[in-house]
Parts: sequence; C-alpha cells; structure tokens
Amino acid sequence: LRVNTITLTTDFGLQDWFVGTMKGVIRGLCPKAVVVDLTHGITPGDIQSGAFALAAGCRYFPKGTIHVAVVDPGVGSSRAAMAVETASYVFLGPDNGVLSWALEAEQIKTVRRLENESCFLRPVSRTFHGRDVFAPAAARLCGGLPIGKVGPAHGEWVRLPWPEPQVRTKELRGAIVYIDRFGNAITNIRGEFLRGMDGPAVKVKAGRASVLGLADHYQAVPEGKPSAVIGSSGLMEIAVNGGSAAVKLKLKVGDPIHVRRW
Amino acid sequence: LRVNTITLTTDFGLQDWFVGTMKGVIRGLCPKAVVVDLTHGITPGDIQSGAFALAAGCRYFPKGTIHVAVVDPGVGSSRAAMAVETASYVFLGPDNGVLSWALEAEQIKTVRRLENESCFLRPVSRTFHGRDVFAPAAARLCGGLPIGKVGPAHGEWVRLPWPEPQVRTKELRGAIVYIDRFGNAITNIRGEFLRGMDGPAVKVKAGRASVLGLADHYQAVPEGKPSAVIGSSGLMEIAVNGGSAAVKLKLKVGDPIHVRRW
Amino acid sequence: LRVNTITLTTDFGLQDWFVGTMKGVIRGLCPKAVVVDLTHGITPGDIQSGAFALAAGCRYFPKGTIHVAVVDPGVGSSRAAMAVETASYVFLGPDNGVLSWALEAEQIKTVRRLENESCFLRPVSRTFHGRDVFAPAAARLCGGLPIGKVGPAHGEWVRLPWPEPQVRTKELRGAIVYIDRFGNAITNIRGEFLRGMDGPAVKVKAGRASVLGLADHYQAVPEGKPSAVIGSSGLMEIAVNGGSAAVKLKLKVGDPIHVRRW
Repeated sequence: LRVNTITLTTDFGLQDWFVGTMKGVIRGLCPKAVVVDLTHGITPGDIQSGAFALAAGCRYFPKGTIHVAVVDPGVGSSRAAMAVETASYVFLGPDNGVLSWALEAEQIKTVRRLENESCFLRPVSRTFHGRDVFAPAAARLCGGLPIGKVGPAHGEWVRLPWPEPQVRTKELRGAIVYIDRFGNAITNIRGEFLRGMDGPAVKVKAGRASVLGLADHYQAVPEGKPSAVIGSSGLMEIAVNGGSAAVKLKLKVGDPIHVRRW
Repeated sequence: LRVNTITLTTDFGLQDWFVGTMKGVIRGLCPKAVVVDLTHGITPGDIQSGAFALAAGCRYFPKGTIHVAVVDPGVGSSRAAMAVETASYVFLGPDNGVLSWALEAEQIKTVRRLENESCFLRPVSRTFHGRDVFAPAAARLCGGLPIGKVGPAHGEWVRLPWPEPQVRTKELRGAIVYIDRFGNAITNIRGEFLRGMDGPAVKVKAGRASVLGLADHYQAVPEGKPSAVIGSSGLMEIAVNGGSAAVKLKLKVGDPIHVRRW
Repeated sequence: LRVNTITLTTDFGLQDWFVGTMKGVIRGLCPKAVVVDLTHGITPGDIQSGAFALAAGCRYFPKGTIHVAVVDPGVGSSRAAMAVETASYVFLGPDNGVLSWALEAEQIKTVRRLENESCFLRPVSRTFHGRDVFAPAAARLCGGLPIGKVGPAHGEWVRLPWPEPQVRTKELRGAIVYIDRFGNAITNIRGEFLRGMDGPAVKVKAGRASVLGLADHYQAVPEGKPSAVIGSSGLMEIAVNGGSAAVKLKLKVGDPIHVRRW
C-alpha cells in the first residue's frame, strides 16, 4: 500500500491560492507524494456534489491512494474531522457527509477522529482546514504515519441519504443527482435496473423531454435531440447531442425522472 | 525516448471528476508517468479548438512525450481511435481531426488503430473513452508497450482543413482561428508573411478596427486601443491594450482579417 | 535547498495551452522539477491580485522553492525581468510589482536582472515570456544554475504600495484588498490589530453591512448573515454564511472598511 498518491476534491476553485498552498504543505512534509486533483470545481458548500464526485472518481485510483475531500462550510465549528482506512484507500475529510457516498462502496477497517494536533500546521486557522489540518495529515499518512496516530476511534459519522429510485409496477421513479460540465443530467438510476429495457418499449421522461429507448452513445440521436444513455459511472443520464441537456431541457439536481415500460 | 511525460488536452473541463480519473488510471498503470495538463478548457465538442491548442502547445514538450487529445463528441460511435508515432512524439486521440493539425508538423512513423482491448479498462463505458481507452493506452505506452501492440495499421485519417490565407496583389485575406483567454484574436496569418511589412505601409482590418502597422508588444499602443502583434505561436493576432479584443471589437472565430499594403 | 519545486502564479487561465507549455519547457530542461500551480486565475493584467496571491501562498512551500509569478501586461516592453534569491526562496517575475508583496516578508540575498539569453528559449516571442523567459530560467535554476548567472545585479525594483489601514482614536479605517472564490472580502486589517476586540464592543462596517464583534467561523452567524472573521491569511475578512459577501453586500476591491470600538 505505498503508492504515494494523494487526491484532492474540494470546492476551493482554482482562482485563488488555496489549492496551491495545500500542495505546498504536502510537498514540504512528504516530498515523494504525488498530488492529483480529482476536482476543485464543486459549487461552494455543495456537500452532495462533493460526495458524488468523490464516489464517482475514487475507485479509479490505485490501492493505497489517500483521498482528501474538503467541502466544508462548517469549518471551524464543532463538526469533527475524520480519517477512514478501508481495504483499498484512506479517506480524509470533515464529518459532514462528504465522504459518505464513497465509503458505501468500501470495506471499512478503521474510522478515526482527526484530532492529534501534532499532525497539523500550527496555528490552525479558523477558516482553512484544507491547508492546516487535512493536507498535513494526508502528507504524514503518506509518509508512513499509522492511521491510529491521528486520533481516537470515531463512532457514528454523518451519512448523506442516497435517493434510491422508487420501483412501481410499470414505472421507475428516479431523480437527477448531478449535472456535469457538458450539461448531462446524471440520474440515480443504475444501468443494471434497465437491463433488457432497451428498445422502444421503454420511455424516459425528464422535464419536458420524453425519450424512447436507451441510446448507445450521445450521437445516436440527431443533433440537438435528447437521449437517455448509460453514462460512465453506470448511471442513466439525460444528454442532448451537441448541446447541454440541463440548459435545453431546463433540468436541475432533484428533478424527477420517470422510466416507464409498457 | 523515455521521458515519462503524458499530456492531456480535452474538453472535459475541471468542474467534474473526469480529468482526475484519467490521472488515477494512469497512476495505477504507470506510476513513473508525469501527467501534464495542456488544457481541459476546450469548448465542449469543439474539435478545431482542440486541434489548435494541441498543435500550438505540443512542440514545447521534450522528445518522447505522449500527447493525448480527447475532444470526442462521437465517443461510442463507429469513429476510430488512433495512436500515431512520429519522430518526436506519440499522439493518441479519436480519429476526428483533433490530432491532425499537430501531425502536420510531424514526421510520421506509424499510425495505428487503437483497438487492442487488452490495453483498455474493462468494461469500456460508452461515453468516457478518455478514462477507459486513451488514458490506459497512454499509460501502457509510457510503460514501454511497443506501439505496434495497440492495434493494426490505420489507413487514412480525418484531417481538418487549415484555412490558408488568400494572397491577392495588394492584400492578404485571412481569418480568425482562435480566441484566447485574454480575448486576443489569433489569425491564420503567419508572421513570416508579414516580414518587411512593418511600419505604416501596412493596414490590418479586423471587424470595425483598422490598425496601421504591426506593434512590437501589447502596450505599444495606448490603453484601450487595438493592435496587430505577432503572437507566441508565430501567428498574427489582434489585441487590445488592457482589454479583450474579442469583446471590444466583437470578433469571433471565422471572422475575416484583411492585411493591405499600399 | 534542493527541493525541486517550482510554483506558477499567473493570469493565463486554464482555457488555453499557455500554462501547459510552460510546464513542457520546464520538463524538457529540468525533468526532476515538480511544478505546482499556485493559481492561474488572476484577472488578466491584475498585478495587485497576483501580488496578493503570491504573498498569501508562497510561504507554505518548503525552503528552496522557486516561485514564478507572471502577471505581465507589459510583456515585450522595456520593463525588466527579475530573479530574487531570499533566505527561503527564489522568485522570478517581471519587475512590475507582482513580486513585491511577497518580498516584503523575505530576507533578500540578491536581486538580479534576468537578461542572460542563454537561459531563455530562442527565439523569445514578443508576447509570452512566461514560456520563453521565466519557465526556462526557473528550470535552469532548479537544475543548479547559480543565480548570479541569470544576469547582472538589479537596482531598485517596483514596489506596490500596501494600503495600510489608518488608525484613528476610536476607529480603524481599512479597505478590501481581495475577493476570493467564495465571495469573501479580504481586508488589509491584520488580525493582531483586533486582539482583545472580540465581543459586541466592536462594530465592523462594510458597505451596507454592519456587524457586531468578530465571529469564530463562517457558520457562527445565521445562514445568509454577514460576519467578520480572521481569515486564513491572518487578515480580517467579511463573509456571509452560505453565500457570497461580495455579491450580497456589493463589495469590491478598494471599498472602505471601518472597525469601531466604543
């Protein structure tokens, strides 16, 4: 488990020096660490999107990777910070749910409260624990610090509810859970649910769009037309060939999706 | 040719986890690879801008660099994926023209169809070949896989037409080919065409702006005023000192440019 | 002082190939260098914001780091390029003030004019010294070139004035110096000035907001409400819980801030 990789998932954006200083801290404490940005483009404070991005991306990294996720509107409050070792990875982040969807897929070995101040930069600022708490702790873990040293065992942690689709006799009721940069509207409906539902016997309704059957790829429908595709995270998504489904169909996170068979 | 450098040029943006997962895949398959982002800011589906960015940037990397370009609106369709070895580099991307302007300047050694599934992640998704096809293939090539192993020889590939400027007796008619982040409007007119054309004997017309002579640098004209400058890619560009030429002069890709001598 | 780290702070943005080519140049000249982006999101030509970001971020990097800052609207003009060795770092950038706020905190050892053309790419373009001058010079310094070789001693350099807050009997008059991605309005008022000024005896006025006391963290006030917090750079900032202070309170750089005690 020595792959020396640390990923960062934050809502810090790239316009300021925030992400850069996290990397500076890591570079000073663990020069062999290779830092990879998963994304810093999470909408400020949007814990669910951060949780979704981390869950969608983390499993493409080699075993032993340390994943740091900081979408942390409660920074400086009494919310705990946590470090979780699983069979494959280590996860660090605030205990506000941002780690929880990624942890669903993991075999958890130990959950710690990140409290040992000797792991941190001093003094710890009130507003930037990405730099002062999470980056240095990740660097020290990458350098070989046993996870037991970061703090005591942590009991229950915040788990975001995953909006499971509802199964009706002839219908599946889901919802949009993420809009990506292309404007594709990713739903909570897993591709496996739709197996055997190809062809015109299936109708997907999303906003004002109604689509027959699943498409193989984005360009399987005429330009400007919507389709339903099984996307790269294994979830059904609504797309528009050559355009943004979110814009064209006025879709947003939380909007209902209906899949009907008849 | 062992420089262990892989560049990425995509339209994936940085707001989601897409680029990060490509790096995760590479890190798992070829830990010694150093990944450099050329850019991920290409407008979604804009193959020409992707081709331009790759051509403008690729030659500043050391020999042996593996350049991956994924602007791929036809992902999952029957478009081929290709791998090209040249005297200096390896290029990977969909066969839709995105590699073609960079290849114009290269001495091509072999062109392969990227088809050998043992190079890919499995299963290959329908919508994200950046992660499932191009990243793992690049990692394996970086790790030493001979290019002949990625698939059979590929015949003709898609070449984007480069809009050559038209030479008239007293006039050069060109066009804007790229707008950069500063709002500079880069044209298809190479600096060499303009040699000896300095001074007020030359007049450049771009949209509603008319400029006399070439400027040495952006601040050679008063603040807020337009100029024509030979830019860093060797092409003439229209700039505005302290502002965006694209906004101020309402310029966009495809707009005509006239250079007149009299 | 061999940490092989080069940071980049620019206004080049990430939508084009500019930053990528700087990294390509560095990779070719000094393969062991690890390049870290401090930020490329500085508003085009905004030297003060570049200076602020560099000063806020540079000290989180290990000793020996080479910091390159290119916010350079005067590129190609007669403005000098400079290289500064301090007790902790090397700084490279145009002599237009962009390095000056970072240098305030440093113990300067030598200041050089970056003039030795054998350090540069040839030919040097008129418009992109980030790629042709600063990146190759940084790479060569990282590779061991003594700083004395980059050019002659440089005399006076441009120093941006730091807007010191004015102290009145019962009032501190400051100003907003930076708006970050969260919309927090960072002021020029250092946290130490406010020691002992906690509690409702202090009133902070920023635009149309009037805030009593300093908050411990962003969520210490109700959602949507403004607060004054000592931020992660040690400066007081105006924030809005769950929103953008800049947008909600219509704050911008240069706006006055009053801290009153009574």
